[in-house]
Amino acid sequence: MFQRPRGTRDWLPGEAYRKRYVEGRLRRVFERYGYGEVITPAFESLGLLVAKAGEEVKEQIYWFKDKAGRDLGLRFELTTPVARIVAAKPEMPKPIRLYYIQPVWRYEEPQHGRYREFWQAGVELIGVPGAEGDAEVIAVTDRALREAGLEGFEIRVSDRRIVEDVLLSAGVDAARVEEAFRILDKLEKRGKEYVVEELGRLGVEADEARRVIDTLAAAGLEVEVHSDRGRRGLEHLRETVDLLEEAYSISVKVDYSIVRGLGYYTGLVFEVKAGEDIGSIAGGGRYDDLISLVGGDRLPATGMAIGVDRLLAVLESRGLLPEYKPVEAVVIPVRSEGRILVEAIKIAEELRGQGVKAVVEYGRSLRKALERAAAMGARFAVIIGPRDLEEGVATLKDLEEWRQVKLPIGEIVEHIGGALHH
Amino acid sequence: MFQRPRGTRDWLPGEAYRKRYVEGRLRRVFERYGYGEVITPAFESLGLLVAKAGEEVKEQIYWFKDKAGRDLGLRFELTTPVARIVAAKPEMPKPIRLYYIQPVWRYEEPQHGRYREFWQAGVELIGVPGAEGDAEVIAVTDRALREAGLEGFEIRVSDRRIVEDVLLSAGVDAARVEEAFRILDKLEKRGKEYVVEELGRLGVEADEARRVIDTLAAAGLEVEVHSDRGRRGLEHLRETVDLLEEAYSISVKVDYSIVRGLGYYTGLVFEVKAGEDIGSIAGGGRYDDLISLVGGDRLPATGMAIGVDRLLAVLESRGLLPEYKPVEAVVIPVRSEGRILVEAIKIAEELRGQGVKAVVEYGRSLRKALERAAAMGARFAVIIGPRDLEEGVATLKDLEEWRQVKLPIGEIVEHIGGALHH
Repeated sequence: MFQRPRGTRDWLPGEAYRKRYVEGRLRRVFERYGYGEVITPAFESLGLLVAKAGEEVKEQIYWFKDKAGRDLGLRFELTTPVARIVAAKPEMPKPIRLYYIQPVWRYEEPQHGRYREFWQAGVELIGVPGAEGDAEVIAVTDRALREAGLEGFEIRVSDRRIVEDVLLSAGVDAARVEEAFRILDKLEKRGKEYVVEELGRLGVEADEARRVIDTLAAAGLEVEVHSDRGRRGLEHLRETVDLLEEAYSISVKVDYSIVRGLGYYTGLVFEVKAGEDIGSIAGGGRYDDLISLVGGDRLPATGMAIGVDRLLAVLESRGLLPEYKPVEAVVIPVRSEGRILVEAIKIAEELRGQGVKAVVEYGRSLRKALERAAAMGARFAVIIGPRDLEEGVATLKDLEEWRQVKLPIGEIVEHIGGALHH
Repeated sequence: MFQRPRGTRDWLPGEAYRKRYVEGRLRRVFERYGYGEVITPAFESLGLLVAKAGEEVKEQIYWFKDKAGRDLGLRFELTTPVARIVAAKPEMPKPIRLYYIQPVWRYEEPQHGRYREFWQAGVELIGVPGAEGDAEVIAVTDRALREAGLEGFEIRVSDRRIVEDVLLSAGVDAARVEEAFRILDKLEKRGKEYVVEELGRLGVEADEARRVIDTLAAAGLEVEVHSDRGRRGLEHLRETVDLLEEAYSISVKVDYSIVRGLGYYTGLVFEVKAGEDIGSIAGGGRYDDLISLVGGDRLPATGMAIGVDRLLAVLESRGLLPEYKPVEAVVIPVRSEGRILVEAIKIAEELRGQGVKAVVEYGRSLRKALERAAAMGARFAVIIGPRDLEEGVATLKDLEEWRQVKLPIGEIVEHIGGALHH
């Protein structure tokens, strides 16, 4: 017996149906905002994948040599592959709006709700330097999550330039700001004293560290900044928050503990939380350096990704996903052979022509066939016996109302098609 | 500058749209026949992948060790992963109807139309031993291809048991029948004399080899068989052909040169050809041993897969794919700032609420913005200037009829929504 690889999952029909349903909702919103889909290869050259993220992410990447000795790796996010495409096509008119709904792979310890293969649905807006770009991407995130059925989530925004300003003024060395970001990223998970201690190792006095944490926790848009870069970040954040409020009627919370894990963000960052029991359900931000870093022009860009598996888990736990019914009508020939079988298949074909999901029962006794039809959630059964053949009739059974009637086959098809609103 | 890995492709929005369109058509047909989707991991344990195909396919597999030393490989087809699922769930009621639309990976020499990452859309019908199972799978293939827009294709059917019977009676050793299958598989590509020569190496006299080839080419359902297994194959093939004709009105051609490349087929096999210039567009057959081979019960099964990339290439070359329009309406603020920008975004939001694909122009001059809107295929532009704000109006421009009119914003939104039939 072969096992599925550790940390992966199979999606069986009900799960796949609900995944497809939610993805369809997200897709519809992305397209309404003018985003076009891209599909990139599952693997990329390893060099591209680590270009910005750095060698240490190699630990998280499934990588291998192909038969020609090239180092390849399964993508672990999609912003970098999209940046590769944009870098190679400088002639594309700006802004470029792209979206993707694709799996990514990370070699991490599997946990409840965390898989080694998981799906991301995201957008990238390339070529808009101003706050209107960030506001649009956050609005798309908000609308997409709502369209998928999610409610009661919170969008938290920050700007790395502001956090950097506060850290620098607290004495953190410019070369160690990235490290300090990663420490702050743990505030919610590890608590204040952990962060004070860790910042101490970067040369920040304990009192100063506490002041930094309190500032970041409470200041909001009234935070005091000391550098031009910090002021630009604050101005950008303010404009984004205002645009979201005024143009999109979206309220967001300023929260400087949001810094995001990936190294390519250069300014505004945001996350969406949908409850305490699960990590962030979506996140993104501005990455104005990435496209030039992978060989393209210097292009401003903002993107976001929704974690499809997590979104599904939350919707599932709240009972917000639709029921799956693989079959709407079952055609049961009293004997599964000869002319009766042919006639049963013909009836099923006519039903399918009306858009009805129909199967033919090939073997079971009538009683078992009806039980099975009900178990699959089918609304109708059509039973055909030898004597029906000459008269061109069959028995229509409504499995919800448990009524049956003998009718000409054309009428049966019409009745079922009509009842199911196809 | 980073390159895409050799043999792979990026799907840009127009291509991804058309791929998604065709997949949606295939999906709809699969579901009408009662098939439910499964999604399996991109990689499987290497042992599973080579279980039936044999060690020699390792050459075609992208395989690697994970950090724990397990041998994993990217799937190169989906029947074996589906068989793994079915083997692990003996409690699933039969028949089981599953479909997939997923990428697979093969390390082969890239050629025109042949990629190292390509998509398969297929179904597996598990638990039906008789011809009605094969006929159903062939019918699904036919209907799915038609629904995708393909016409003028030919379905060729064969049964490995018949070909085996003919080969054995011509003196081929039972242990070398698989090898002889692979030789016959080359008939169309390499010609008759090549096959005569190669069969000679298996101990078949040249005259006898020619007789075999002629028999297989011409005999159809009148072929002479000498073994019980051959007779069973012929009977099964005859029933399948009859059912397709009588119940589904589908004509197929019996062609014993069809043997299929993969080792797991045990009986009926088929292929779909859509012209001389491209290989088979779909294929499948019966594999009654595979599920027990991967650790499950012995379960009869028939499946098929459509090559999505090839299908798209044929439809594209025949001009049968829809046009892609990323944007339907562009909202152009005369100045991209302050209240005008807010109002432009609000108009776009209202349009999106009507299901219209709408973008806001953030930077271009009016003339350039209109050019760009037309280039994206947008039907409408909405222009808003500072004086419009107080009056609650904007200018609606129909870019097809090149007319413009100033109207209250509510009317504009309604007009665009109505004109686009959302």
